[in-house]
Amino acid sequence: MVEAPQTDEGWFALHDFRTVDWDAWRDAPERERRRAIEEGISYLDSHEAVEDADAGTSAVFSVLGHKADFMVVHFRPTLDDISRAERQFEQTALAEFTEQPTSYVSVTEVSGYVSDDYFEGNKEDIDTGLLRYIEGKLQPDIPDDTYVSFYPMSKRRGEEHNWYDLSFDERRELMSVHGDTGRKYAGKIKQVIASSVGFEEFEWGVTLFGDDPTDIKDIVYEMRFDEVSAKYGEFGEFYVGRRFPPSDLGAFLDG
Amino acid sequence: MVEAPQTDEGWFALHDFRTVDWDAWRDAPERERRRAIEEGISYLDSHEAVEDADAGTSAVFSVLGHKADFMVVHFRPTLDDISRAERQFEQTALAEFTEQPTSYVSVTEVSGYVSDDYFEGNKEDIDTGLLRYIEGKLQPDIPDDTYVSFYPMSKRRGEEHNWYDLSFDERRELMSVHGDTGRKYAGKIKQVIASSVGFEEFEWGVTLFGDDPTDIKDIVYEMRFDEVSAKYGEFGEFYVGRRFPPSDLGAFLDG
Amino acid sequence: MVEAPQTDEGWFALHDFRTVDWDAWRDAPERERRRAIEEGISYLDSHEAVEDADAGTSAVFSVLGHKADFMVVHFRPTLDDISRAERQFEQTALAEFTEQPTSYVSVTEVSGYVSDDYFEGNKEDIDTGLLRYIEGKLQPDIPDDTYVSFYPMSKRRGEEHNWYDLSFDERRELMSVHGDTGRKYAGKIKQVIASSVGFEEFEWGVTLFGDDPTDIKDIVYEMRFDEVSAKYGEFGEFYVGRRFPPSDLGAFLDG
Amino acid sequence: MVEAPQTDEGWFALHDFRTVDWDAWRDAPERERRRAIEEGISYLDSHEAVEDADAGTSAVFSVLGHKADFMVVHFRPTLDDISRAERQFEQTALAEFTEQPTSYVSVTEVSGYVSDDYFEGNKEDIDTGLLRYIEGKLQPDIPDDTYVSFYPMSKRRGEEHNWYDLSFDERRELMSVHGDTGRKYAGKIKQVIASSVGFEEFEWGVTLFGDDPTDIKDIVYEMRFDEVSAKYGEFGEFYVGRRFPPSDLGAFLDG
Amino acid sequence: MVEAPQTDEGWFALHDFRTVDWDAWRDAPERERRRAIEEGISYLDSHEAVEDADAGTSAVFSVLGHKADFMVVHFRPTLDDISRAERQFEQTALAEFTEQPTSYVSVTEVSGYVSDDYFEGNKEDIDTGLLRYIEGKLQPDIPDDTYVSFYPMSKRRGEEHNWYDLSFDERRELMSVHGDTGRKYAGKIKQVIASSVGFEEFEWGVTLFGDDPTDIKDIVYEMRFDEVSAKYGEFGEFYVGRRFPPSDLGAFLDG
Repeated sequence: MVEAPQTDEGWFALHDFRTVDWDAWRDAPERERRRAIEEGISYLDSHEAVEDADAGTSAVFSVLGHKADFMVVHFRPTLDDISRAERQFEQTALAEFTEQPTSYVSVTEVSGYVSDDYFEGNKEDIDTGLLRYIEGKLQPDIPDDTYVSFYPMSKRRGEEHNWYDLSFDERRELMSVHGDTGRKYAGKIKQVIASSVGFEEFEWGVTLFGDDPTDIKDIVYEMRFDEVSAKYGEFGEFYVGRRFPPSDLGAFLDG
Repeated sequence: MVEAPQTDEGWFALHDFRTVDWDAWRDAPERERRRAIEEGISYLDSHEAVEDADAGTSAVFSVLGHKADFMVVHFRPTLDDISRAERQFEQTALAEFTEQPTSYVSVTEVSGYVSDDYFEGNKEDIDTGLLRYIEGKLQPDIPDDTYVSFYPMSKRRGEEHNWYDLSFDERRELMSVHGDTGRKYAGKIKQVIASSVGFEEFEWGVTLFGDDPTDIKDIVYEMRFDEVSAKYGEFGEFYVGRRFPPSDLGAFLDG
Repeated sequence: MVEAPQTDEGWFALHDFRTVDWDAWRDAPERERRRAIEEGISYLDSHEAVEDADAGTSAVFSVLGHKADFMVVHFRPTLDDISRAERQFEQTALAEFTEQPTSYVSVTEVSGYVSDDYFEGNKEDIDTGLLRYIEGKLQPDIPDDTYVSFYPMSKRRGEEHNWYDLSFDERRELMSVHGDTGRKYAGKIKQVIASSVGFEEFEWGVTLFGDDPTDIKDIVYEMRFDEVSAKYGEFGEFYVGRRFPPSDLGAFLDG
Repeated sequence: MVEAPQTDEGWFALHDFRTVDWDAWRDAPERERRRAIEEGISYLDSHEAVEDADAGTSAVFSVLGHKADFMVVHFRPTLDDISRAERQFEQTALAEFTEQPTSYVSVTEVSGYVSDDYFEGNKEDIDTGLLRYIEGKLQPDIPDDTYVSFYPMSKRRGEEHNWYDLSFDERRELMSVHGDTGRKYAGKIKQVIASSVGFEEFEWGVTLFGDDPTDIKDIVYEMRFDEVSAKYGEFGEFYVGRRFPPSDLGAFLDG
Repeated sequence: MVEAPQTDEGWFALHDFRTVDWDAWRDAPERERRRAIEEGISYLDSHEAVEDADAGTSAVFSVLGHKADFMVVHFRPTLDDISRAERQFEQTALAEFTEQPTSYVSVTEVSGYVSDDYFEGNKEDIDTGLLRYIEGKLQPDIPDDTYVSFYPMSKRRGEEHNWYDLSFDERRELMSVHGDTGRKYAGKIKQVIASSVGFEEFEWGVTLFGDDPTDIKDIVYEMRFDEVSAKYGEFGEFYVGRRFPPSDLGAFLDG
């Protein structure tokens, strides 16, 4: 009997992708564009300031290519919070110029692969450094002024290579080696991992942040050679973009 | 020769997913919005009260992300009942603001994996507790005020791992272990399983209900390590949302 | 060298799926709706009466869910007949309220798996019972007032399990067992099998008819355990619906 | 080291599929319809007469089902010729009533599997019968008044069965047996094979012509039992239709 | 433990695909068409002259078939540069007549498979010929007046054949043989390889340039027999077209 890892969950996440209807934008009267920008900035400002919930964090990113034009990321304590954030966007004049080609719902998670102590031990005995590390995973910050890459990921259940058929110890070992690769990028890349099991077809959403987009390429490429990715990783679409402050929304929309 | 399990069927199910045309909604005159809300509430109320058929149950849920905005679930005694429920929605003023990106047709089912007694024995000798359990599977309640996850599922017919090539006893044993995992979530998660063989590309529709969305994540994740899912499960898209009373439709649409 | 089965062909088939633009329907003036219904009934009546060709049969079915709203099925002696039937529908006022999300072109077929006598023997010596059976396969009736399920199907050419790599005798044996399963449903389910090789990506279109939709579920499920389906069957989308007389078109469109 | 076959190339091919916007067509004033038909006929006539290039051939075919309504096929000496043919269609009033759901770009090809003599020997020593055969492959005629089936095809690169990993001699032998099957249909079916490697996701486009659509079904089915198709063939969507003279365009559009 | 190759990165690349709304184009007043052409030429001229960034190169190509009508390719030093190039296009009057069906984001890359000396040695000791070769890979020219083929590519991670599970030496050897095939086309085909790991679902974008489109077909076909492609290559959609000078934009749009 194969053992599932223990998990602890933190904030829920919504990655809300939007395309801009550039034709409508170009054709709109100046007054309507100004109102869309004002309401857009107001929405983004109040959500970055987390005025809509008890805790959390939000940010907006431009996205390259046809898949989307921008992405708003919300981390919030409850599923209801992110549901409301999504619907409130639709009430803004900015929404009128956008469509939502895709989105991703997930919940931040730490698992027993990462730390036996956290799950096995007495919570009061846990090292405060570890606790702060776990807290950073479950209630993540969004770094300032930087590039982002988002992608969904599952573990393969192939006829030969089946992650869910490995023993807990095999899985932990593979994850540990993977973590070593990640640590080589300490100071360059920050990542948020959130489970979407039960919410999306893929099992996790991964959000990478870095000041140099080639570091994003490098870490994903190097990790693909780790056995856990090489044999057991299934990846979906990738989205790359750059954070911008809400006050730059007008400049973003004007090219 | 491989033996198919015996089955008994209950109510038919329609999972009717709808997206809202938020641009049209924002632009509509107050009078039209009010009429859409009134007709929407009236439709939902009368279907939750099952005024359209002899028996059954219905409920409406918000849905997160781009896949849909809300989902109406109908359980009814006949395929004609759910067909009519679907077409009657189209006659409401609310429908004008929606599209139907997807849907799911199925029929609740219990199978010989679950209970030999029910299928083999004399119906009059069956334990009333078992009878009530079976009846709850075939004529399911929809729990109040709670989160929902819906997803389609098939059993794999891979070149190496082929569910339909296993003996009945092997399948029953795998299902039994799977049931044990499910029972760990008793009191937290209720599920409705309905067969869509002959109606949809996937073979079953699964609807999970729970008061905590992380329980939904946990049960799906833990079950994925059961051999029946790890080696033989094929999953489609997942949809997550929250039940709301029809009277909240206006609040839902206004964000 | 692997031997292809002999085949004989009968009528061509078009499964013409249509969605209704319900928004346009609700908004259309009564006069336009009446005209659409009249022209729709006239088209369906004249095609059910086969006024457009020398022989054949046609019927219309409601379809559940988002995949389509109704399906018109035409069996006709020639490919030109079904091509014309398709284009003539587009000339009706009803077509204005519909789109064609999908369709299926095929030709009824009997093969050497079914009957050596028919293909090997002297046609004059063939048993008249068999001849009538074959004729029923090649020039099928559409049963009255009943449920329908349509799905496309191919035989797997996997790296391990490859139908097209089996000997003729192996294939005939597997088909024969499959036929035994089918015969258990005699009196409950009628089926029409038509080849779409060279016309569609899938290789056959299967149309099932029955008075109880759970019989449709049961036969497809039970057959999936037959080796021919378990190891060699590839299935596409399934469509389920119910026949209605053309005169009910107005009632159908009004929910 | 695996050896690629030698190839020689002839004319480029564009299979230009078009759907008709039947709603717009029905609603258009008679004058606009007449103009669309006139410009459509003029385009088709001048392209069938190859007034746009030094050499080549073109034809128009009705297509059954939802995938397209008609297909224009152009064979021309250069890629620029078929690019211009595509864009010139967009300048006609007929184009206004159409969309282009799909298309296929390829170049006619003969390969070393077919004839060593042609590639190995001195060109001057080649048998004139063979030369004419090759020329017919590279500069194909389009037969009059007949049915057509088009489909894209690739050779499988599976983990076990990998065409590109076979020796040249194995491939030539498999192709030779395949050719024998084709020759059984001499006089019934003509085919044009054109490579789309570097132009399309699939590797070849196959166009079959025949006076009886069941012959098209039969040849594709029988060939699927050839080892080259059974183990190494990957097929895309199939399109079936019938040639019509440009002068019948109006009748075609009027059902 | 499998070793990832060292890499060095150069310019970022955007392949920006556009379809033309031919109906809108035909219907637009001459004045609007002229303005669209003027602004389109101005955009293309200034980007080919790299007035928008410190360095780089851009070009526009017609594209055959339904996948796109034209493609603008930008190579620029930073991800921000190509993001701005994409959004600036949307501000032109030409954009009003286009949609963006697809796109590709990547960064030019050389890897340790190609040259140990470059990555291992002292940079000052590197042969100037090699340095110039590397520079040509990282800061590529776009050749004049020629055909183009673009396609995305990944390395297979199959259950049996898994590129990411091979040793570095095995991979280098396979790449070296592949390079030999490429060198046979020296003078005929130029290629730009750019990594999209972390940016796109596929891992690399390949852009081929040549004066004869059959050379494009030939090199892709011949390379498919190289073990690295035959066993380990996964290819996406292919796009083929031809470069044109911005001043020909009007002629291009007028067919």
